[in-house]
Amino acid sequence: MSANVPTDIRFSFAGLARRGGDTGPHRDGWGIAFYEGKAARMFHDPQASASSDLARFIGDHPIKSRKVIAHVRQANRGRIALENTHPFSRELWGRVWVFAHNGQLKGVKNLPLGAFSPVGGTDSEHAFCWMLSRLQATFDAMPPAKKLDREIANLSAELAGLGVFNMLLGDGRTLYAYCGKRLSTITRRAPFGEATLIDEARTVNFAEETGPNDCVTVVATQPLTANEHWTSVNPGTLLALRDGEICASIHARPQIAGKASTKAA
Amino acid sequence: MSANVPTDIRFSFAGLARRGGDTGPHRDGWGIAFYEGKAARMFHDPQASASSDLARFIGDHPIKSRKVIAHVRQANRGRIALENTHPFSRELWGRVWVFAHNGQLKGVKNLPLGAFSPVGGTDSEHAFCWMLSRLQATFDAMPPAKKLDREIANLSAELAGLGVFNMLLGDGRTLYAYCGKRLSTITRRAPFGEATLIDEARTVNFAEETGPNDCVTVVATQPLTANEHWTSVNPGTLLALRDGEICASIHARPQIAGKASTKAA
Repeated sequence: MSANVPTDIRFSFAGLARRGGDTGPHRDGWGIAFYEGKAARMFHDPQASASSDLARFIGDHPIKSRKVIAHVRQANRGRIALENTHPFSRELWGRVWVFAHNGQLKGVKNLPLGAFSPVGGTDSEHAFCWMLSRLQATFDAMPPAKKLDREIANLSAELAGLGVFNMLLGDGRTLYAYCGKRLSTITRRAPFGEATLIDEARTVNFAEETGPNDCVTVVATQPLTANEHWTSVNPGTLLALRDGEICASIHARPQIAGKASTKAA
Repeated sequence: MSANVPTDIRFSFAGLARRGGDTGPHRDGWGIAFYEGKAARMFHDPQASASSDLARFIGDHPIKSRKVIAHVRQANRGRIALENTHPFSRELWGRVWVFAHNGQLKGVKNLPLGAFSPVGGTDSEHAFCWMLSRLQATFDAMPPAKKLDREIANLSAELAGLGVFNMLLGDGRTLYAYCGKRLSTITRRAPFGEATLIDEARTVNFAEETGPNDCVTVVATQPLTANEHWTSVNPGTLLALRDGEICASIHARPQIAGKASTKAA
């Protein structure tokens, strides 16, 4: 989620959490990051979100944020453990970067790393560390947004060449979403209406929860609500979201697998 | 806390949490890190722990761990905000390092940093980033424990030369505690007895909660229980705790302020 005002994510999170072991098979841990400035408040649980006490706590407490990244995991590479539970985070240039990924990336562990090393055994964390290592090698400090957008698109395309790369990445300024295979988005602004979750019998009237200038975009692998119009993202596209708006949509087709490693720093 | 078996910290945490705005003035945020292998499950809240719903959640749910670092903050440098809430964490050599500090360090922000940068504005986070930068410059990979103990002692002594440096540091293998001014420890092992908190009317019978071979050491600025014998640590001492035991106690007197910067990488 990206928003132009601190926003309560609990409605969307309730739907996502059900997919972690109830309406969906992603029962191998879950996590959520709420940005507050350049830092992020994070919660991780290697248990299924559908039955997690911590997920219930999150659902009961409005932690308002302008940028939120949440993930429910279906393990393939890497055992079920805290160290393999998304979203992953690292500090670069005095900011907390947060990363979540769905998919598998063949041979990603051959990509050379710089100063960032995985703690766990997932393809995803290796891919994240590789991205940050490349960014650190390319820029001395946080670059202007549009320059960074372009670089994240290039790096995403390289990773997408290795398999399925549906990815969310935050740096405290921008929320990036790369569609490797399947992503949907919805932008809500006035006039706000009602929405009903797909995964749970829950309806919200956003008109009662929002101000007239609020703008909120939600990105998810699959739509979370039944009675709203979600937009499918074209595979091979990087979205850059700031202040609730999709500011850039960059075509970045997967590159040939293996090319990435020759370019790595 | 360091323990040789996964241990429930809730009794000690209940006492500490009361010091965050109730029996003590450390009301400017709190945090806790539970190690699970090389990763750590972390919770942060910029609110007072004595009245925090999240602290109550932690108090209601046994998250067993062999290494736990918790902190309640009384702000001096750095506003009350998530980014300034201890414990801080970074990844180095594929491990999560966790750091918490009480005290002020005059001129610490003049110490040069390497690849680790503060996200917030505290002296503490700068000191942590400096320590990790120095470790990264000194060692190519995680060194043997005793070698690292010695280096952490040296770095701690340099920081202690700048002011008050009561510090906890974890790397997933060892829990380090440096006494700049005031620290107390207690090691509990069979035969276990009863203990009563100082800050809350709560008693636990450890004999009912433990196995015969359990060994647990708790380090705190001030003793947490009234009817046990806590040991005061001599200022200028670094303790290295592994598997619940104090494995090393290294005398590392504060060094002359400013000397640190000339030695920095």
